[in-house]
Amino acid sequence: MPPQKVCVIGSGNWGSAIAKIVGFNAEENPELFDLEVPMWVFEEQVNGRKLTEIINTDHENVKYLTGIKLPQGVIAVPDVVEAATNADILVFVLPHQFVRGVCEKLKGKLKSTATAVTLIKGFEVAEGGGILLISDVIRQILDIPCAALMGANIANEVAQENYCEATIGCRDMQLGQKLKSVFQTKYFRIVCVQDEIAVEVCGALKNVVATAAGFADGLGYGDNTKAAVIRLGLMEMIKFCEVFYPGSKLETFFESCGVADLITTCYGGRNRRVAEAFAKTGKSIEELEQEMLQGQKLQGPPTAAEINYMLKSKKMEDNFPLFTAVHNICQSKVPVSELIECLRNHPEHM
Amino acid sequence: MPPQKVCVIGSGNWGSAIAKIVGFNAEENPELFDLEVPMWVFEEQVNGRKLTEIINTDHENVKYLTGIKLPQGVIAVPDVVEAATNADILVFVLPHQFVRGVCEKLKGKLKSTATAVTLIKGFEVAEGGGILLISDVIRQILDIPCAALMGANIANEVAQENYCEATIGCRDMQLGQKLKSVFQTKYFRIVCVQDEIAVEVCGALKNVVATAAGFADGLGYGDNTKAAVIRLGLMEMIKFCEVFYPGSKLETFFESCGVADLITTCYGGRNRRVAEAFAKTGKSIEELEQEMLQGQKLQGPPTAAEINYMLKSKKMEDNFPLFTAVHNICQSKVPVSELIECLRNHPEHM
Repeated sequence: MPPQKVCVIGSGNWGSAIAKIVGFNAEENPELFDLEVPMWVFEEQVNGRKLTEIINTDHENVKYLTGIKLPQGVIAVPDVVEAATNADILVFVLPHQFVRGVCEKLKGKLKSTATAVTLIKGFEVAEGGGILLISDVIRQILDIPCAALMGANIANEVAQENYCEATIGCRDMQLGQKLKSVFQTKYFRIVCVQDEIAVEVCGALKNVVATAAGFADGLGYGDNTKAAVIRLGLMEMIKFCEVFYPGSKLETFFESCGVADLITTCYGGRNRRVAEAFAKTGKSIEELEQEMLQGQKLQGPPTAAEINYMLKSKKMEDNFPLFTAVHNICQSKVPVSELIECLRNHPEHM
Repeated sequence: MPPQKVCVIGSGNWGSAIAKIVGFNAEENPELFDLEVPMWVFEEQVNGRKLTEIINTDHENVKYLTGIKLPQGVIAVPDVVEAATNADILVFVLPHQFVRGVCEKLKGKLKSTATAVTLIKGFEVAEGGGILLISDVIRQILDIPCAALMGANIANEVAQENYCEATIGCRDMQLGQKLKSVFQTKYFRIVCVQDEIAVEVCGALKNVVATAAGFADGLGYGDNTKAAVIRLGLMEMIKFCEVFYPGSKLETFFESCGVADLITTCYGGRNRRVAEAFAKTGKSIEELEQEMLQGQKLQGPPTAAEINYMLKSKKMEDNFPLFTAVHNICQSKVPVSELIECLRNHPEHM
């Protein structure tokens, strides 16, 4: 096989961190990968210069990943079609609301043999309610295979080369191994599993559980209660896959995409942090997003709303009391103080 | 069935917290349980009074669980044979090094139909090396069935009635359900599984993982690395059960005894805390036990030593690099800075 060309679509915090890894592996393995790694960058002005120009001259994304040098093979490209057109492997790592638009632009312009991998944590809202997997959006529009890479991967820590793990979910294990060679480094360790849907679903649902964990923290409960909330959330994640995406394996939830990412998110993430403030202050989620995230949006509450739509349609809200409680609390239908009451008779304890 | 007499053997922090629950359930369910719950208390003088007398008069264990009222049915008894002799259900909740001696005293003095449950987290060191389960010690000496109750249960939080979960492992599900009714309350929620050995093994091994998590904290790694350490530790716990106690189920590790207790211990426990100080200060474990625990002993390092003995005998040290690293670091055979190096080529990533 000739050296594969890898393209990174997205250049935020996580996109830049992963471009560093991809560029490094391309340098190290010229027999496997084209040295040049185009990275699509949404063009903007930074201190009077174009961001693409800064990246291509200074080899640093000064806006989203300051202080980290990118390999010289990583080339910022402002046109997404130009960036992707010759690529063999497309790495999608951009905010989930932009995926559909980007895919529409790329439609019909890719190599027919191209493959994709999504690093995006979240669902797309389906027209009429419910959710679509990001990988499904990519597959449907571009008609190429799409794997998922998820894990306990705080971008800055990855960029600083702190040891961590990730999971690649890929039905085709040969493609999975190829993708593993794109990403694995001495400090970024990969386990490849076939269960691609469960890997991706974990990455979205963990934010709902982290919201509940934040409520528990804000209500002043201790470590036992928080551990119970995290565990019950994990059980609901597993059950949600069983119900809506049957065929996933229990083992997958023990991978970095499952239990490890969940732990990190429930201790360190912003969904947890804002949910804690919600319970403590009585302010609305929107107010807190303004105050604490400069207007950026949380993923936990909208994800809870979308999955609630799905649970309701199957009359299964009572089978998922934690997911349901998070939704009802975020919507002010239930006071946050009722969180634990919602869990007392969890089906797990019956 | 006539009301069952439950006896609590042990009256430390956790013993007193669980006696509160058992006494409460006895009061609430006179048709199921004898109102009187004898609790064996190692007699000592506290402020010039006998501890048993204080407990029986003031209904508070002022030494080990201050500020918590015990139900009046909980009766402190200084003689362990007297406490246990009429019991139908024996709740073992005392430091593991005292179990054998207590069982020897009770041998031949119990009801033939008595059953036991251990709440003790740890192994007994077998003569000549290796480990024995506490439940095996109880079963062997007393010739009665013995279940295990484990979970994310910090004693003070349980005593304050913060919501939490626990797992009962009991091969005989009918006995398991009976034990569930001894312990389950509105705030203490129980899941019963048949996998009694895995439930108990989790309770001991988690301290080894927490020691590794503490090292990672002390070395200044971030959340990604810590999540990876916890996850790899969990995988080794599962594999250890597979190798030494075959037949356990993957599901069991998702119970409170597994993932939840592990999380709590890796974030809040004293094994983690002392291991962090070990990595930061370079002092020995023994020195830190003196300074930080007033001479009390950690469970993680000796447990790591005992399981290392077992792994060595099977030439399996390399299959358990985290367990092995913890042992070698505690024994100063490997510098703590090498922790991550030990994990880079974990069999999980191959």
